[in-house]
Amino acid sequence: MSAAAEAPGDWLRKRAALSPSAPALFVDRTVVTWADLDARVDGVAAALATRGVAAGDRVAVLLPNGLPLVELVYAVPRAGAVLVPLNTRLAAAELAWQVDDAGARVIIFDDATAPLAAAAASTHGALVHAGDLCAAVRPVGASAPLSGIAPPSLGDVHSIIYTSGTSGRPKGVMLTFGNHLWSALGSALNLGLDPADRLLACLPMFHVGGLAVLLRSAIYGHPAVVHPSFDAQRVNAAIDDGATIVSVVATMLARVIEARGPVPYPPTLRAVLLGGGPAPRPLLEACAARCVPVVQTYGLTEAASQVATLAPADALRKLGSAGKALFPTDIRIDHADGEAAPGEAGEILVRGATVSPGYWNRPEETAEVFRDGWLRTGDLGRVDDEGYLYVLDRRDDLIISGGENVYPAEVEAVLLSHPAVAEAGVYPREDARWGSVPAARVVLRPGMSVASGDLRRFCRERLAAYKVPVEITFASTLPRTPAGKLQRRLLSGP
Amino acid sequence: MSAAAEAPGDWLRKRAALSPSAPALFVDRTVVTWADLDARVDGVAAALATRGVAAGDRVAVLLPNGLPLVELVYAVPRAGAVLVPLNTRLAAAELAWQVDDAGARVIIFDDATAPLAAAAASTHGALVHAGDLCAAVRPVGASAPLSGIAPPSLGDVHSIIYTSGTSGRPKGVMLTFGNHLWSALGSALNLGLDPADRLLACLPMFHVGGLAVLLRSAIYGHPAVVHPSFDAQRVNAAIDDGATIVSVVATMLARVIEARGPVPYPPTLRAVLLGGGPAPRPLLEACAARCVPVVQTYGLTEAASQVATLAPADALRKLGSAGKALFPTDIRIDHADGEAAPGEAGEILVRGATVSPGYWNRPEETAEVFRDGWLRTGDLGRVDDEGYLYVLDRRDDLIISGGENVYPAEVEAVLLSHPAVAEAGVYPREDARWGSVPAARVVLRPGMSVASGDLRRFCRERLAAYKVPVEITFASTLPRTPAGKLQRRLLSGP
Repeated sequence: MSAAAEAPGDWLRKRAALSPSAPALFVDRTVVTWADLDARVDGVAAALATRGVAAGDRVAVLLPNGLPLVELVYAVPRAGAVLVPLNTRLAAAELAWQVDDAGARVIIFDDATAPLAAAAASTHGALVHAGDLCAAVRPVGASAPLSGIAPPSLGDVHSIIYTSGTSGRPKGVMLTFGNHLWSALGSALNLGLDPADRLLACLPMFHVGGLAVLLRSAIYGHPAVVHPSFDAQRVNAAIDDGATIVSVVATMLARVIEARGPVPYPPTLRAVLLGGGPAPRPLLEACAARCVPVVQTYGLTEAASQVATLAPADALRKLGSAGKALFPTDIRIDHADGEAAPGEAGEILVRGATVSPGYWNRPEETAEVFRDGWLRTGDLGRVDDEGYLYVLDRRDDLIISGGENVYPAEVEAVLLSHPAVAEAGVYPREDARWGSVPAARVVLRPGMSVASGDLRRFCRERLAAYKVPVEITFASTLPRTPAGKLQRRLLSGP
Repeated sequence: MSAAAEAPGDWLRKRAALSPSAPALFVDRTVVTWADLDARVDGVAAALATRGVAAGDRVAVLLPNGLPLVELVYAVPRAGAVLVPLNTRLAAAELAWQVDDAGARVIIFDDATAPLAAAAASTHGALVHAGDLCAAVRPVGASAPLSGIAPPSLGDVHSIIYTSGTSGRPKGVMLTFGNHLWSALGSALNLGLDPADRLLACLPMFHVGGLAVLLRSAIYGHPAVVHPSFDAQRVNAAIDDGATIVSVVATMLARVIEARGPVPYPPTLRAVLLGGGPAPRPLLEACAARCVPVVQTYGLTEAASQVATLAPADALRKLGSAGKALFPTDIRIDHADGEAAPGEAGEILVRGATVSPGYWNRPEETAEVFRDGWLRTGDLGRVDDEGYLYVLDRRDDLIISGGENVYPAEVEAVLLSHPAVAEAGVYPREDARWGSVPAARVVLRPGMSVASGDLRRFCRERLAAYKVPVEITFASTLPRTPAGKLQRRLLSGP
């Protein structure tokens, strides 16, 4: 037998060959074709090589959505390097930790993220302004493709995306070219592929959900409408202008619907992919009443975004369900005695072509989470006898605030680093706008005192704003099990 | 890193889990749902195991299109065995050779193919009537899935499909689960996926083109309308009844259009995939005039059917082109000095995830045809500067007659086995109905004589009817190069 050749990993290159003059991007009031984008990306890849970026290097990118970020998403792999998209909402200390952990060779920033980038660059990471890479290639077609870079294999790592964990220490999720490709194909087999499709990218591309929208766009050959940040009015305008598939989290969808008022949506809007945590029932009912075709999804970074989705046809019959496992994935529910029967609750396990090979430089956590071919999500759920998944509780007290994950352990670790704090517990508080927000209860060291406002300021310097507890109360003890384990669920009580 | 899990290889099983009550097949005036089909196939797989079929065995299937063939296409891999679909139009001697070459454990037949099957069973192949496997499971849900069969990997061989070659000896093309899956995905990324799609399977499933329609149906979750054989009126009725994608060869399309008369086609017909050889320009123009959305394709068994397709939008601008290489494939043109420049003619090479790992038990031919990751098709073509492929001549004097491949060398080998024949040359003759038909010129041995009709009868006993020369003429010499190589192109002259 001859060696099996694979599907392509440079999706942009293939797409530019297939449909060069079709629109690839609607961004910053301009239209960029696939051939234009491909030529620009050649230029950026060459500029990265000039800056010393070589095969296997990690390239951290600290940029908001926009043409430079899009170019880098394609150019970093084309230069043979691994993309490390950084969350622009994180605090400098958090970013510095991730840059260091990834061993990034360069950190790419723009004017808006310059101060953060400067503060984040520590032992690793030469600072490079995106304008120095991207502006250089404005005359399209001036750059030749980089030579000497082997085309990627589907098993190669495409990107490392940081996700916080129960230990409080963020972990870099490695996602391969194959993970991303199968994620896109699984989504297409579920939602269909309409030649008129236009994908709205209003989620930040430093999260897997936003990145997946962009990559699907190249794999499908459908243009992406890229918004620099979320703006409800602008989302509505994009839908009126022909966006057919919109990816959002629940808090965004609520604001989009609210901003819309009574104006109906055009029939061209064929799917609103709703991810990033649980969807409140009133929101789903409001969408159903307005014929908004909501497709609920359950996904996670470790599985390259969508794992299961619920078709609009099932939205009311299976209210609260995240639907069925997509074509490339399988779901299993495990409890203490092994595989759960239909209807029984347990931990959600995921297997398939979209599942990450593991965490960057974390063999122990990888071995713990990825076992026997299954990803142990830590999330609690059940699968009914028709195969529909119900997510009962997100993993390990995870607080989902406006689609961003907040791990109590990570916030507690910061509180505990304050000299006056002896014990800290972080728990979710319901919030009309964000779904949930973090709150904290602390026990002070004997003889020490600190004001709640000072503690919050202490957190703000070390954590992204959405992770800072909205309220910090003081107590003499925290609820614990006899073994001393913090019982966070009891913190929200009186 | 943990081992990467793959996309599923039992597409029917996954599809039945995703959309159990949706229609899978319209066949024999009945509708079969995915759950029904899945249960039936469990029964057939169990029946195969009872007959001694074990993992890795080859199972030859000599059946026309219909529910039993569909069930076996899914059940043979589910039993861990390799599917060997046999062309029901072949002569018994040809079939016996293939059954023997494949080392088939069983040959499955029905009432119509019983005499052929009996004649084809030689040293290999126990005869099993399809009714004994399939009828047994009519009460749906009675059979449990076979245990102990490992799920297929995408690199495993799914089927072996015989194709004749220049040497005159048919070769078994091994196609993996991954080859078929990527073929389906490449086609979807090209044509789109509409939830209303309904695929017409009127091509025989013992050819890769017909088999691919059925497998796409399960991978997409779109029902297949299965016709027992080609009937132009019935194709038109299926289109009126909602078939959206129809796969045909040129001679079939001409008859469908002719049978239609002036009645327009409904807008639900969104693609007529036209493969199996060159399309005559008048046919393409007639289709354009009637707004029939013809999608010309270039494909071959060694690449699991479609390699390139031409979008209807380009049909007139690029008349005569077979379009661009699909998402999972690359095309290159090679001439004697290496890779050809745009516009230059040369041999068509194909690479990608749909390309076969090689020929069954033919290491030498495999090494010759599959080199450095490229499949050398033997077909002559050029690629223009926009990347559109033009097929200039099919490989090695191949005659395509009504979509069936006729290799002159194979027919010549039979003629040469007649005691009176010293030399034989087979060449194409234009035919209004079939596009081309084979004709032959022979040189008799000194002192020997044989009537043309007797020679044709001799061929008919050893070859499929469509391979038998329509006319055999006699000559004292055949045109040859100075080195003695037959110049078939000169045979059609005076």
